[in-house]
Amino acid sequence: MKEKVAVIGAGSWGTALAMVLADNGHDVRLWARRKEQVEEMNKEHTNTRYLPGRVLPENIKGYHDLKEAVSGVSFVLLVVPTKAIRETLQHMKPYLNSEPVLIHASKGIEPDTLKRISEMIEDEVEDNLIASTVVLSGPSHAEEVCERQPTSVTVSSLDAQSAKQAQDLFMNKHFRVYTNLDLIGVELGGALKNIIALGVGLTDGLEYGDNAKAALMTRGLAEIARLGIKLGANPMTFAGLSGLGDLIVTCTSTHSRNWRAGNMLGKGMDLNQVLKEMGMVVEGVRTTQAAYQLAERESVEMPITEALYDVLFNDRLPEEAVERLMGRVKKHEVENLSFLLGPDFQDGYSEKTSPPRSEDI
Amino acid sequence: MKEKVAVIGAGSWGTALAMVLADNGHDVRLWARRKEQVEEMNKEHTNTRYLPGRVLPENIKGYHDLKEAVSGVSFVLLVVPTKAIRETLQHMKPYLNSEPVLIHASKGIEPDTLKRISEMIEDEVEDNLIASTVVLSGPSHAEEVCERQPTSVTVSSLDAQSAKQAQDLFMNKHFRVYTNLDLIGVELGGALKNIIALGVGLTDGLEYGDNAKAALMTRGLAEIARLGIKLGANPMTFAGLSGLGDLIVTCTSTHSRNWRAGNMLGKGMDLNQVLKEMGMVVEGVRTTQAAYQLAERESVEMPITEALYDVLFNDRLPEEAVERLMGRVKKHEVENLSFLLGPDFQDGYSEKTSPPRSEDI
Repeated sequence: MKEKVAVIGAGSWGTALAMVLADNGHDVRLWARRKEQVEEMNKEHTNTRYLPGRVLPENIKGYHDLKEAVSGVSFVLLVVPTKAIRETLQHMKPYLNSEPVLIHASKGIEPDTLKRISEMIEDEVEDNLIASTVVLSGPSHAEEVCERQPTSVTVSSLDAQSAKQAQDLFMNKHFRVYTNLDLIGVELGGALKNIIALGVGLTDGLEYGDNAKAALMTRGLAEIARLGIKLGANPMTFAGLSGLGDLIVTCTSTHSRNWRAGNMLGKGMDLNQVLKEMGMVVEGVRTTQAAYQLAERESVEMPITEALYDVLFNDRLPEEAVERLMGRVKKHEVENLSFLLGPDFQDGYSEKTSPPRSEDI
Repeated sequence: MKEKVAVIGAGSWGTALAMVLADNGHDVRLWARRKEQVEEMNKEHTNTRYLPGRVLPENIKGYHDLKEAVSGVSFVLLVVPTKAIRETLQHMKPYLNSEPVLIHASKGIEPDTLKRISEMIEDEVEDNLIASTVVLSGPSHAEEVCERQPTSVTVSSLDAQSAKQAQDLFMNKHFRVYTNLDLIGVELGGALKNIIALGVGLTDGLEYGDNAKAALMTRGLAEIARLGIKLGANPMTFAGLSGLGDLIVTCTSTHSRNWRAGNMLGKGMDLNQVLKEMGMVVEGVRTTQAAYQLAERESVEMPITEALYDVLFNDRLPEEAVERLMGRVKKHEVENLSFLLGPDFQDGYSEKTSPPRSEDI
């Protein structure tokens, strides 16, 4: 069925998702904050700053007026930086009278409030829209989605019907959409993996090798899962597309903004220089701050997040932070993972045999 | 403590591990089948074919005679291709009179018998050695280990004391060694990940992008875990260094032999051409055969393994096999992972709400 969809945010990911929707034959209204960008999209059918070299199909129209963009649509897809979520919703709210399904594809956690994006949405919109909020997340470079390379993502909502509607809206031959009931896990997986991408960028900047990178990603996923479980997520979500899958894409591609920012840090720039150089939002920086606060609140051990927090906000030298991480060895691997099996699980050696105990050397 | 260690197999991984042992001050006897290679190691202190550009330290001595190599040692480290394990053990067995700890660092499963390496060892050596068999596995490019880049691996044994001894033998500042009681899981993780590396090489050869690669690795790990659990492994091992960690290193590096072989297949070569071109053992090929047989025997769904088996042994076109894999969508992600939580676990949507049922589109 042909639907009216407003895509709010015309960065590379918003534009790529708009192109998927256009492929599916929907009427797409792509809203951008900058007037010149909207004019370029409507006259030249390009979005050069974010997706150089791509031509937007005819059924994507650029909008600069939020009211016009969202009036009468069946779906609103929110793809703005975490920092801009509340403000955008406040502006948009008076015009959401058609009770659209709200989908968001942003990845972050708000520092201080420590809220996920759907929780921020809950604060800002009317109750009737809250129930239908859907998150879309998973391993997906925008550039590849535009090229119609095969991509698989996850949608999640507390409302099964909304998740199904979002799935039907996006699903096509190249863009596969799975549903997962675990809203908390899907949102956290997408947000927290950016911390690990910063860390991997950092170690790559310091020229550690692939062995260290793989170990860091493995520990990183364990750390994400540890916090996620404490916050009510299903452990299995972190083994899926919006956990492991997204972690792999973000940590192993030089296209990732968070990886690139970490890489510059590893090469010796400080945070201000990096953010200036990037010229785009690096979600992982604020997410590191939020996760650091969450780890404290929930008493969860997150050594990678803590090390990165020290580099970002406490002027700790990257090489010092990484050395500490690498040397920080517990001798029993399974101890670090036992959280996934719950409190009854014990490392086999400690239970069944006379154990060689954990110790650092 | 300075130990006498025989390293049996002087390929790149055997030589790199010999260098770790030499760094730790042990007396290392590095055995190779080819006489010229042994002469090169002893005269030039190099192993050009497998580790070009590296100089072997003085405390590594090359051996061509198995008896001389293993007589009187405290540890035997076996690093030969899976195919050569039995024959090597049969030759070595009469000389293992010092009752050394047997460690192996090979990654494979034997087709037809469907045995893991420690089970093959069990068939071939005396009972007193069986109990002490240790496996060493994890994310580790040989080249990086030689450069003393930080690396973390896992050792596992049914005998805690032997695992601890192996840990102490290898552990140093750059080479971190964890213990894990789950021998089955550690051996299977290392072996089965080569199948996924072949598959990822194949899709890279066909020029699918990073999104598809991440999705394939995510499903691949799920498939490995599914078989592993059926065979008695601890699910958590697959989330650790010898599961996820090794998968990441092998699938994301062009140094991986299995990735390279898959890549050539994707570019249109047939298996015989690929094996000729490689000129080295590609463990993943035989492991695919073994895993295919295991999946049948255990009635475990392993779509990636099956698709690859068809390409390798049934002349199926790679693009056909991959298309089938990519299109093979179940709409509920969690259904595919529920095995990790055991039979009581149900996908949330199907249980708690009126579910949108799984279907292909």
